[in-house]
Amino acid sequence: MTAPGEEMYALVERLYPLCRSITGDGVRATLEIVGEYVPLKVHEVPTGTQVLDWTVPQEWNIRDAYIADPAGNRVVDFAASSLHVLGYSVPVSAVMPLAELRAHLHTLPDHPAWVPYRTSYYQPEWGFCLAQETLDALPDGEYEVRIDSTLADGHLTYAEHVVPGQVPDEVIVSCHVCHPSLANDNLAGVAVATFLARALAEQTPYYTYRFIFAPGTIGAITWLARNAERIDRVKHGLVLACAGDRGHLTYKQSRRGDAEIDRVMRHVLTASERPYRVVEFTPYGYDERQFCSPGFDLGVGSLTRTPYAGYPEYHTSADNLDFVFPEAMADTLAVCREAFAVLDRDRRYLNLSPYGEPQLGRRGLYDALGGRSDTKQAQMAMLWVLNLSDGEHSLLDVAERSGLPFDTVADAAGALRGAGLIKA
Amino acid sequence: MTAPGEEMYALVERLYPLCRSITGDGVRATLEIVGEYVPLKVHEVPTGTQVLDWTVPQEWNIRDAYIADPAGNRVVDFAASSLHVLGYSVPVSAVMPLAELRAHLHTLPDHPAWVPYRTSYYQPEWGFCLAQETLDALPDGEYEVRIDSTLADGHLTYAEHVVPGQVPDEVIVSCHVCHPSLANDNLAGVAVATFLARALAEQTPYYTYRFIFAPGTIGAITWLARNAERIDRVKHGLVLACAGDRGHLTYKQSRRGDAEIDRVMRHVLTASERPYRVVEFTPYGYDERQFCSPGFDLGVGSLTRTPYAGYPEYHTSADNLDFVFPEAMADTLAVCREAFAVLDRDRRYLNLSPYGEPQLGRRGLYDALGGRSDTKQAQMAMLWVLNLSDGEHSLLDVAERSGLPFDTVADAAGALRGAGLIKA
Amino acid sequence: MTAPGEEMYALVERLYPLCRSITGDGVRATLEIVGEYVPLKVHEVPTGTQVLDWTVPQEWNIRDAYIADPAGNRVVDFAASSLHVLGYSVPVSAVMPLAELRAHLHTLPDHPAWVPYRTSYYQPEWGFCLAQETLDALPDGEYEVRIDSTLADGHLTYAEHVVPGQVPDEVIVSCHVCHPSLANDNLAGVAVATFLARALAEQTPYYTYRFIFAPGTIGAITWLARNAERIDRVKHGLVLACAGDRGHLTYKQSRRGDAEIDRVMRHVLTASERPYRVVEFTPYGYDERQFCSPGFDLGVGSLTRTPYAGYPEYHTSADNLDFVFPEAMADTLAVCREAFAVLDRDRRYLNLSPYGEPQLGRRGLYDALGGRSDTKQAQMAMLWVLNLSDGEHSLLDVAERSGLPFDTVADAAGALRGAGLIKA
Repeated sequence: MTAPGEEMYALVERLYPLCRSITGDGVRATLEIVGEYVPLKVHEVPTGTQVLDWTVPQEWNIRDAYIADPAGNRVVDFAASSLHVLGYSVPVSAVMPLAELRAHLHTLPDHPAWVPYRTSYYQPEWGFCLAQETLDALPDGEYEVRIDSTLADGHLTYAEHVVPGQVPDEVIVSCHVCHPSLANDNLAGVAVATFLARALAEQTPYYTYRFIFAPGTIGAITWLARNAERIDRVKHGLVLACAGDRGHLTYKQSRRGDAEIDRVMRHVLTASERPYRVVEFTPYGYDERQFCSPGFDLGVGSLTRTPYAGYPEYHTSADNLDFVFPEAMADTLAVCREAFAVLDRDRRYLNLSPYGEPQLGRRGLYDALGGRSDTKQAQMAMLWVLNLSDGEHSLLDVAERSGLPFDTVADAAGALRGAGLIKA
Repeated sequence: MTAPGEEMYALVERLYPLCRSITGDGVRATLEIVGEYVPLKVHEVPTGTQVLDWTVPQEWNIRDAYIADPAGNRVVDFAASSLHVLGYSVPVSAVMPLAELRAHLHTLPDHPAWVPYRTSYYQPEWGFCLAQETLDALPDGEYEVRIDSTLADGHLTYAEHVVPGQVPDEVIVSCHVCHPSLANDNLAGVAVATFLARALAEQTPYYTYRFIFAPGTIGAITWLARNAERIDRVKHGLVLACAGDRGHLTYKQSRRGDAEIDRVMRHVLTASERPYRVVEFTPYGYDERQFCSPGFDLGVGSLTRTPYAGYPEYHTSADNLDFVFPEAMADTLAVCREAFAVLDRDRRYLNLSPYGEPQLGRRGLYDALGGRSDTKQAQMAMLWVLNLSDGEHSLLDVAERSGLPFDTVADAAGALRGAGLIKA
Repeated sequence: MTAPGEEMYALVERLYPLCRSITGDGVRATLEIVGEYVPLKVHEVPTGTQVLDWTVPQEWNIRDAYIADPAGNRVVDFAASSLHVLGYSVPVSAVMPLAELRAHLHTLPDHPAWVPYRTSYYQPEWGFCLAQETLDALPDGEYEVRIDSTLADGHLTYAEHVVPGQVPDEVIVSCHVCHPSLANDNLAGVAVATFLARALAEQTPYYTYRFIFAPGTIGAITWLARNAERIDRVKHGLVLACAGDRGHLTYKQSRRGDAEIDRVMRHVLTASERPYRVVEFTPYGYDERQFCSPGFDLGVGSLTRTPYAGYPEYHTSADNLDFVFPEAMADTLAVCREAFAVLDRDRRYLNLSPYGEPQLGRRGLYDALGGRSDTKQAQMAMLWVLNLSDGEHSLLDVAERSGLPFDTVADAAGALRGAGLIKA
């Protein structure tokens, strides 16, 4: 069997060429491929639907786009890269001198070989993105420009995959599927989310895990608008993005800063051998912006490797298949699994025998032979769980206060629960 | 136009020769001069008036005082410095040997050239303050001592200047006007308060600013006693003293420690390039002692340069016109203005569209072209204000949490309010 | 008169040879000797009594125990040290080959000359503890083993000594009396508790101090079970153990971490010149485990020198009379006395004149001569007590916030109370 890193990389490779945007067939094709890995429920929301403060826009689709030089050569060609066209460009078919065309051209002068990623979702506009060095080489003259796109009433498309748990309380995992040929942002995030869903389904988790594959901003807003009655059930969440570059992991805390997901992520990252960064919430970045808006204020953090706008390749053609790595995606996936393993077992218990210590020995939970000072970790964990199970402290609190591994603490809680000494 | 530092220094020079005390004509003359700069409402409170736990004492006035040596030379002369007489000295006219006189003489053996400042307000006493080296040079013999003072029923005098604001909630600024010829403590404070009042009146501020020029302790107590019904309106306050020496600024926090004035002063001092110190409240110092007594517990801090008793010249003749500097007073004034500019704009807003982000673009508040990572500060400020305007956070909270300049945050709030997205 | 260190050491010497356990005549003999120093009320609780989750076990007594080698020599002999027999050993009288005997022998391979301390209270077992080097020297052959012990219905024995105070609120001081010939753990603790009780009785303290001399775990549990109605009166407490070794003092905080005893101990240790450690609560150690179980959650900390299991000699024959020192016990006693002196005077007062400062001068509480900056500590203490006596702050809060010595603060409170300015 192939290692998950390689499998995730293969998925990224398949998705890479597609031209995604916040609506349109590129998103549908993307979800179809993801659906080969985990079953998806695809939602189509009509243009014009009011979603919170926003309105679902017209659907954008594109077949071809190019700039042809005076000699008729396609010097910028959508077929070569979906980045070449300004996202949501209105159709255009014209001939114009280079001087006039320049107003519609986007480059990165500081990185002359790279093509930038630009969009104009809510302002009718057309344009091309190209390398500065391509632009510099263009001779004066008349250019043919053509964008064969349509902007028409249609739908916004997003999908969900649900791993049913023992309780209806939900953990949401969200990733954006609206970026065209950009590998780290966010095909790596899509791949890690997909394989995380597969891993969780291997056993029935405690929480119900809902994976949301949706376009950024408008997609999250649409999901929130259509799931108003579900929000109270969302206890924790994680936004996945930039999951495959070589940088260290970065966890961005929820707006609350002390949500359980924040504490779990900090605990798992601290306990692991990995270098990492934890940063505070800011109202910029990915869809944590929406989940953590003050009206919702959900316990949703965001996990990336190098974060939003934190690397020069960000939102350029250099965020390509060479920029993401199987091992990096495997590492991101592993941390997610570790974190959810903690989250899924973390509970507040109540000591049913809180006056003095219960006699563990007669229940077979304690070494019979006293006087030795090399008390075992498992016994210490039981004493800690008993001492802190007053309804105020979770197992994660116990782990952090005792310095014992979370698993040891959770196992001790299991033994105590089995002996009827604590209850959830 | 003269720079404010020079103007404040000129005011200090005019006030310096006057013999101030907690009552009497020296205070009245002082307030008359200040009244040339800002209109004052002068209050006269009769001797014997009960003020909180205290009683307004008899009024003290002095015309002349001296010690004449056996040869008839005035070796200590009130005409040379108001410091030479023990404040509130009862009248005396006597001839006595030096040995007997010594019990009434106050010197500073560690600083033999300096004259100390001493008072005996509530214990009938007479005395002179002189340089140790003057005392050392006195031959034995019979000395004529004369203090031509009166202690009689009269009044305690204090004054107020009010800058009316948009709301009746008040900020009080207090300075003591009871010290005789001491420049830094507190003529510099009086000068800064006076020019701060002038500056605030240039536009209608949000708060109503009340400046209190009153003798220390008994003056503040008298003001508090006579303004019982106003206290609830006092939201913030600042006691100004020692405002003109060469030392760094020192902000002494209110008793509460986290009052808004404390947070504003810390923010402004931190944001500025100045070196500074913030110290905790102590129940000693200036009239913050009274404003921060536990029954009132007002949000009143104290701003000084070198603080209370923190320099050897403190309460001596060396705290003279050479000890204060126009630039230092100008700097103190500037910080007060910066702080009040923040205080005056700081508000808690409520996001009226708290579910998800409102669509700023269609309101013309957001860059149309997406994908770029160089988000502008003004847009970030809008997102921060929206995210934190939940009724719990003020604009100062937003500035501190976002790391954005307060003015940028306040401007963003203005734009959002203009668009109907937030309300105060 | 002998110094208390020497007296305490003499008490430890007398108690050392006795074979104590959680029940039996060794405990009774111990309490009889302690009773020569302070009057004790001895409690006998019958076997089978239900105490919280536990049951008082059968009483164990032992007269003799030995292993005789094939030549008939007693190679391990209870008469030489009470440590040689596994605590609570069932009787045995048998001859067996060394190979079979080994399963019942306990040694410390890492410390071949030391005899370990082992028990088996709740699992019927017999065994011997001996030096590894003794074991290594044993020839093969048939050994006679004999333990002349009884396990029979009887009683668990503990004792109390009460120093009556001005109020029924109690401070408990607890030490365990169940360890056989181990000097630091816990005869030093017993000795310090005994002399602390004597010292407290010299004057009527504010609190009622209850000293509990009881076997570890089951003794504390028994006391708690039999004093359910008293628990609400227990305001503070201290468990004393390992009080005589050469290590620095270690204070282990109560489960609450901010109980008054925690704050007092930290304050006293910080204020003293001693090196010390303060550690957080853990649910392991001595009887703070029971007092701080979540159902009780009492403000009980634990004072030791080198803490539980923190030295190699712990629970071995090397914790002998050479391991404890008169000066160390005297130092532990001194800190306990200092701490209880603070605890006993710490109170929350209410300023009866909270609006502005009361006029201290007319009450003779303040220097008449103003203007001097060398304000005396006693006056500062009065201002601090007045300022913080709002019902929220105790005198310890005042001492910590002001940086003044607790005694100065408490004396100031006494003066203010005498003047009718504050009330308890």
